[in-house]
Amino acid sequence: MPIATRAFAATTSTAPLTPYAFTRRDPGADDVAIDIKFAGICHSDLHIVKNDLGNTVYPIVPGHEIAGIVTAVGANVTKFKVGDRVGVGCMVDSCRVCGPCKAGDEQYCVPGMTGTYGAPDKHADQSGETITQGGYADKIVVDQDFVVTIPDSIPLDAAAPLLCAGITTYSPLKHWGIKPGSKVAVIGLGGLGHMAVKQAAAMGAEVTVLSTSDRKKADAERMGARHFLINSDKTAMKAAAEKFDLIINTVSATHEIAGHLQLLAHDGTMVMLGLTTEALPVFAMPLLWRRRSVAGSLIGGIRETQEMLDFCAEHGLASDIEVIAPSQINEAYARLENSDVRYRFVIDMAQL
Amino acid sequence: MPIATRAFAATTSTAPLTPYAFTRRDPGADDVAIDIKFAGICHSDLHIVKNDLGNTVYPIVPGHEIAGIVTAVGANVTKFKVGDRVGVGCMVDSCRVCGPCKAGDEQYCVPGMTGTYGAPDKHADQSGETITQGGYADKIVVDQDFVVTIPDSIPLDAAAPLLCAGITTYSPLKHWGIKPGSKVAVIGLGGLGHMAVKQAAAMGAEVTVLSTSDRKKADAERMGARHFLINSDKTAMKAAAEKFDLIINTVSATHEIAGHLQLLAHDGTMVMLGLTTEALPVFAMPLLWRRRSVAGSLIGGIRETQEMLDFCAEHGLASDIEVIAPSQINEAYARLENSDVRYRFVIDMAQL
Repeated sequence: MPIATRAFAATTSTAPLTPYAFTRRDPGADDVAIDIKFAGICHSDLHIVKNDLGNTVYPIVPGHEIAGIVTAVGANVTKFKVGDRVGVGCMVDSCRVCGPCKAGDEQYCVPGMTGTYGAPDKHADQSGETITQGGYADKIVVDQDFVVTIPDSIPLDAAAPLLCAGITTYSPLKHWGIKPGSKVAVIGLGGLGHMAVKQAAAMGAEVTVLSTSDRKKADAERMGARHFLINSDKTAMKAAAEKFDLIINTVSATHEIAGHLQLLAHDGTMVMLGLTTEALPVFAMPLLWRRRSVAGSLIGGIRETQEMLDFCAEHGLASDIEVIAPSQINEAYARLENSDVRYRFVIDMAQL
Repeated sequence: MPIATRAFAATTSTAPLTPYAFTRRDPGADDVAIDIKFAGICHSDLHIVKNDLGNTVYPIVPGHEIAGIVTAVGANVTKFKVGDRVGVGCMVDSCRVCGPCKAGDEQYCVPGMTGTYGAPDKHADQSGETITQGGYADKIVVDQDFVVTIPDSIPLDAAAPLLCAGITTYSPLKHWGIKPGSKVAVIGLGGLGHMAVKQAAAMGAEVTVLSTSDRKKADAERMGARHFLINSDKTAMKAAAEKFDLIINTVSATHEIAGHLQLLAHDGTMVMLGLTTEALPVFAMPLLWRRRSVAGSLIGGIRETQEMLDFCAEHGLASDIEVIAPSQINEAYARLENSDVRYRFVIDMAQL
């Protein structure tokens, strides 16, 4: 039978998030029912709540950085059992038959993956919700193919942000072949940036953080950065020209891209991770002159998400977090808009 | 002793090109002296003559698509002998010790390659010229490491444009792994575009040409294109969404890039080949959503240029050209500015 669920939802683009009750579907044969213990707050949550992309359906329960405990499994579920520590990220389904899906890149599903919140809900007849509802809730029901195992060594609260931020940075580091000796720059030390630094350093890369001030320099070094550059320092920026194999750009500001392409070495790539809606001015010359690329990357596949969690466990990595109560979500949103968080807010759903 | 040389040079950014006499250096031990038979007119020649990049030194003899016959070789020259059919492209030297040089990517030489024209001339004491002077001339002297062999089956006139246009398109096709079954789009059917179509088709790719009108449709199909799209046809463009592994963008107009990124498949790349000086508006979303890239590529290395010439010979490829006399250079420039050439002007230096 459907599962009564308590949550926090946005009801309009301007109102504060408020308590919201709805039902999750009765777990099917392939489903895993999860008690959500912690949910991270991702910057995308703000974009959707504020309808920045223009397609938000209300009410909406955000949250796609979910860590919890399995409470029930369907008859066909072989990967999980009651009591398991599990995570759910940005996707809860995909077509499963297109090229990217078959390759394990479900995030690039051609007909489109099913987002953890805000996507048309295939089980609407059971959930009573026309769209999928996310992780700012006490319970969720997810197909086993979109659930991952959280290794025992990672605390559930610090694991939650790995399900989006952690995979969003891990996937491009792997895709662009970062290995010992690679030179990686990370623009912006926030929720994504701090994970990029930790992971790239654990992969053996020489990591440089670029930021607008030295406020976070000590943090960056503690996380594994070898160098710290203030990007308004023209002398330092000039000295860093042609240095980096990969720049992980977590910042959406348009000026960042043109001014930083010169930092890329021959065959280097700047990968954009932020959901920016305005056009970025890119000059062809710095691309031509060194065969540089500007690319984008979107989270990662499910298999890769599990690999990332295992990698983080192996290297003792997790997110730096501030745990808040559900009642503090709106305050956290206001702080996040001012980049005032070190480095990810995580909601303790036990306090719901 | 220095070699008396006749040429056509630009003396200011606005005056027509006029006859110009100067001397080439006495061939050194590593040098090859060449009688230039044909020189292609590249769009870059116009940019430099008109000082579009702001750094042109006058008088300047343009031309970096050079085909000719060896007339003398230095004592150390082992690769060439008198009478050989040879070509010279966009470079006549590089540092030879940096990473890209050692990898055969001399065009990406870190201290900077020596351009065939307009670069500081290391042999200025002998040539009497402070800058290197290019191929709109009857003779040239070039280090053997920057000379390539033109296979017997390619006519010298139709070979000349391969030295810049041909390698500029071949290199990215190889770098991005084009093979039988790859889907390649070429934006703009001009000097670069027509070579991209021929080469990609010869590599077994399914080639689509995108153009602003169907004026060149029959030509495109003759060159090997399977499809022809008019890029203002919204229905056709929508039907082509997510289709291409690689887009070769030979057009500099800013509107082209944003509107065409949606045509790229997952992991697809748009490679820019044109010397564009204004910023191109790139939206991050289409990059993120399919892990697409926008990249640049600059000519190709010397070893790769030889490989390209051999590939063209093997597949019976060469440029489609209009041969002109040196006295017609200015008229050709005017036509080139209106994209009125099918598909490359080549100057017959015997008529000098």
